[in-house]
Order: sequence, then structure tokens, then C-alpha cells
Amino acid sequence: MRIVVLAGGIGGARFLRGLQAAVPDADITVIGNTGDDIHLFGLKVCPDLDTVMYTLGGGINEDQGWGRTEESFTVKEELAAYGVGPDWFGLGDRDFATHIVRTQMLGAGYPLSAVTEALCDRWQPGVRLLPMSDDRVETHVAITDPETGERRVVHFQEYWVRLRASPDAEAVVPVGAEQAKPAPGVLEAIAAADLIVFPPSNPVVSVGTILAVPGIREAVAAAGAPVVGLSPIVGGAPVRGMADKVLAAVGVESTAAAVARHYGAELLDGWLVDTSDADAVAEVEAAGIACRAVPLMMTDLAATAEMARAALALAEASR
Amino acid sequence: MRIVVLAGGIGGARFLRGLQAAVPDADITVIGNTGDDIHLFGLKVCPDLDTVMYTLGGGINEDQGWGRTEESFTVKEELAAYGVGPDWFGLGDRDFATHIVRTQMLGAGYPLSAVTEALCDRWQPGVRLLPMSDDRVETHVAITDPETGERRVVHFQEYWVRLRASPDAEAVVPVGAEQAKPAPGVLEAIAAADLIVFPPSNPVVSVGTILAVPGIREAVAAAGAPVVGLSPIVGGAPVRGMADKVLAAVGVESTAAAVARHYGAELLDGWLVDTSDADAVAEVEAAGIACRAVPLMMTDLAATAEMARAALALAEASR
Repeated sequence: MRIVVLAGGIGGARFLRGLQAAVPDADITVIGNTGDDIHLFGLKVCPDLDTVMYTLGGGINEDQGWGRTEESFTVKEELAAYGVGPDWFGLGDRDFATHIVRTQMLGAGYPLSAVTEALCDRWQPGVRLLPMSDDRVETHVAITDPETGERRVVHFQEYWVRLRASPDAEAVVPVGAEQAKPAPGVLEAIAAADLIVFPPSNPVVSVGTILAVPGIREAVAAAGAPVVGLSPIVGGAPVRGMADKVLAAVGVESTAAAVARHYGAELLDGWLVDTSDADAVAEVEAAGIACRAVPLMMTDLAATAEMARAALALAEASR
Repeated sequence: MRIVVLAGGIGGARFLRGLQAAVPDADITVIGNTGDDIHLFGLKVCPDLDTVMYTLGGGINEDQGWGRTEESFTVKEELAAYGVGPDWFGLGDRDFATHIVRTQMLGAGYPLSAVTEALCDRWQPGVRLLPMSDDRVETHVAITDPETGERRVVHFQEYWVRLRASPDAEAVVPVGAEQAKPAPGVLEAIAAADLIVFPPSNPVVSVGTILAVPGIREAVAAAGAPVVGLSPIVGGAPVRGMADKVLAAVGVESTAAAVARHYGAELLDGWLVDTSDADAVAEVEAAGIACRAVPLMMTDLAATAEMARAALALAEASR
């Protein structure tokens, strides 16, 4: 069974662990968001790709959900001693090595997809991890600066990590997406899939950014395989992260049903909402999308695997 | 008093500490060798500049003479886990930060001289540290590979660090030197100096490389200030390092007198040899270079400061 998952960071990575547990023999291709990539200290950092790679490869810091386990911060302290910032992005020493290898390979001319494959040679995540594109895409967010009152456009990571998504997101722009091409293998994997999953990743800055690469949305819409999504919104709020803030920027309510309608029946065949949102089922089905209410909290691997099984069952039902 | 010192790594750096102790009010400009620079993991590493900076700035590992004190090696271990080499060059986490800052600034378009000044803002070495050139120069060594028996050209660091200078150096080539220009301030500092010192650095791959940058040798020869050197060879062998190997490559005997004649009276006004080499004094003076025999072992700061005072006295005598 060939499964394609469009994944962001923590939510996508944790769901993938459940999916692997639910269908150990599946051939899983992950199309990873690279819109949150950022250049820090001259190094290319790909937080979402790395979160998937570290999570599935056993190197993740389980408590925080991102970054490496048993991490130290010597390099960061030294950079601060040089007065070189930013100081708000927590790169650890182990993590730095990943970015050093990546930057060196990119500098030598390898595309990001080849670099990601090389990094995964070490981590053996058990999935084929593809960046959505080898071209540079960086999500930016328009805000009103809380200190100066002026309108500013900041990198997504500055919005999320430094500002903790505190100012309203007035617009979300995946800079470079319009000119980007899907990475090698992305469209082929979508076309050949038996199932396509939107995990409970951010519908705007994760899955939305992947779909913004010309050709990917069209390929998903045209795919023969059922497309099933899991709501990242439970009880009117994101389980984790700031999906509510960026959904507001694109005029979408933070409800499980509104996110389903935002993707729309042209993309989605099925949609899972949490049991606490059972009253959204009728609304989603009225939009032409099969819907079930099941527990959607990824409290442990067993619960997450059960979510994956529910997605598979819904796909089967909507086939 | 304006003093210009042409320095390599450990020997130059330790001598400079003695010079600072001997003449605390002196205005010291260090012209640093960059021929041992190397790109590792996509980062620009300048071992000699950093050894001077760390030594005078209080960050050096005193025992080994290079690298940072209280160093850890997490990044290096992670790079090895990715299978990315070389593994023979011991970059520590603290040291990595220096190379990350340098590489980022070079990538942003700053010349090495401006980068070095920025790094020294932190370390406050008490000297003005100038790279010999902003242009890339990398010393290579021709050897017969001990494993394959084939003639190879290796980077100086591979010769010195990986091969521990074990094969004979058949030729020493400062690649890029002929096209290099002295960094801003280098020729001006030489012309304005009251004293020019060749510390007990390697006469071929340290001082020799600096002199190989077109214009620097000529400026030293034309300088109004006395030029005094200290022999890195004591009792027929280098105090430290592999000067004997690279001297042989340029056809120079490893004796204090032969090194003085190698520089020649067109550069040197005075030359200090160790007391154990007192019989070399007459030979050096016969070559037109004032010579004194004094203790030249940098066993501690007091002994090193005494060497600096001897250099100042010889300069005064030869003025």
C-alpha cells in the first residue's frame, strides 16, 4: 500500500509514527513542508523536515517535540558571545551538525531533495522523505509590530518562535512558492498513491504551503487515491501551535468543519474530526466530504495508531 | 613604538604574549599567515589567525597551544555520525562558532580582514590582527604517499595534522599567493613601523608564506625600521612543529644560521639564536646580519618577554 502524507512538523511527525505502527508494511512517502525553512548563521535550517527525520529516526527531543535529544548549546552560547544573533532560535550543537552538513551539500550543488535523502541515510526514518520543492520558499507573516505599531513582514519563524504568534497574522505569504517546482518524485508519488493523507498539521503554513507549490494541489485533486484529512482543530482551538492565528489571516474560522471546507471537496474525500466535535460531521458531509468523529488526541503511540486506522477505514469507505 | 610582527600560529602567538609583556605600551600590528586556512564542512577555518586571537584573548587551550579551552566535540561527533569528514581535524564546538561567524560574514561579502576585526572585537587581543591577504591562499605540500607510493599534493593541514609531517615534503606551494594582494593596512603598517619582528614561526609555511604575497617582501626589505628575527631552530631542530621538513623542501639546512641566510641580509638586520647555537653567531654576522645568542625557549611568559627584550635591544644596536 502506497501512502502519501503531506506533513508539517510536530503534528505530522507524530501522526507518521502512528501510521507506521498501524500499517508497518506500507510504503510511505512524506512530502515535507519547507516553507518554514530559514537561514540562520549562514546555515540552511529545515525545521519541519528535520522534525520528521528526527522523530521517525529516534533522535527527537520527545518532550519538546522538536530538536535533538541529549542536546547541548555550546555553539549557540559562543555565537552570542560574538554578538551574533538571532538569539531566539534554539539551535543545539547536535542540530547544528545537521545544518552544517546540509549547507555544505547545498553549497556543493546538490538539490535539497538529494541532501534530505543523504541525511536520512543516517536516520533511517522508514519513510521516503521528500521536500515539497528543491526551490527556496519561505513563509512570511504580515503583522503590526507590538512595539512600534508599524506594519511589518516577518519570517514565519520570527512570528512563531520569537513573537510566539502573539500579534495577529494579517497575511501569510509563502514567498517563492509561485515560482517553485515540486521536488523530483513528488508528483509521481501523488499519482501512484493508494491513499493520500493530510495529517493534523497546520492547514495554512504546513499543508497549505505544500499545496501552494504549483502542480501539487492539482495533482492531489486529480489523484485516483482517496484523500483523507485529520482535523488539527479540536473543540475550536488548535491542539498545538497557532493554527487559529493563521487561519484567521486567510478568513477561516478555527473549527474542524471550517478547515474541512477550506480544503474543500475538490481535495478531500474524507475528514476526521475529534469526538468532541461530533456535531461538525453533518456540516462537513453537507460539503460533500465523508466525515467521522473519532478521538484525535495523539496522547501516545497507541492512540495515534488508532487515528491512522480510522483514516484508513474512512478512506476505504469513501473509495 | 609601532611594532609589526609577521606571525604563524603557536610560536608567533606565544612570542606575542612575551612582546606585550615586554613593551605594554607598544602599538603592535600582527600580519597573520593565512596559508594554512582550510575549508572544512563548508566553513572557512583560519588556524593561525585564530591561534593568535585565542592566545592573546585568553581563550586558547594552553596545553595544546591551539583550539579553545574547555572545549567539547559534540558537533564533530555528529558530523562523523553522518559519515561526513574529515575526521582528522579536531574542531571543537566553541571553535566551530568562530568558523560559523567567519563563514557567514564572508558569505555576506565582508573581506577576511573585516571579519577578523569583527572577531577580535570579542577577544580584544591587544594587537591589531591583519590577515596577510584578503585573497585565498592555501599552502600545499607535494609528498610521496606512504601507502600508495604515488606522488600527491596535499593541503598543508593534511600534511601536518593527518600525516603528522611524516613523509618528506618534496615541495611547498602557497597556491594563490602570486595572485594575492596584501590586505588593507599591511603595507602601510610595515612602512610606518619602528620595528619589524619575525618571531620564531616557521620560516617556510608561516613567515615564508606571508613574504610570498607580492609586495610584502619588498615592503619589509624597503622599510626604514630594523627587522629582527628569532630562530625557530634550536640545536639543529625545530623547537616545535615540522620546520625541518619544509626547510628541506626549499633546500635549507635546519640550523639557526641557515635560516638566517635563507631570509638574508636584504630582509634581516638582526637575528637571535639560542645560547646553545652560539657558534652560529659568527656565520650569521658574516652574512651581514647582526646576531646575538640568548635563551630562546619560550618556557614561560618571563622567558618569552626576555626574548622580546633581546629582540628590541638587537634592533636598537643594529639601527
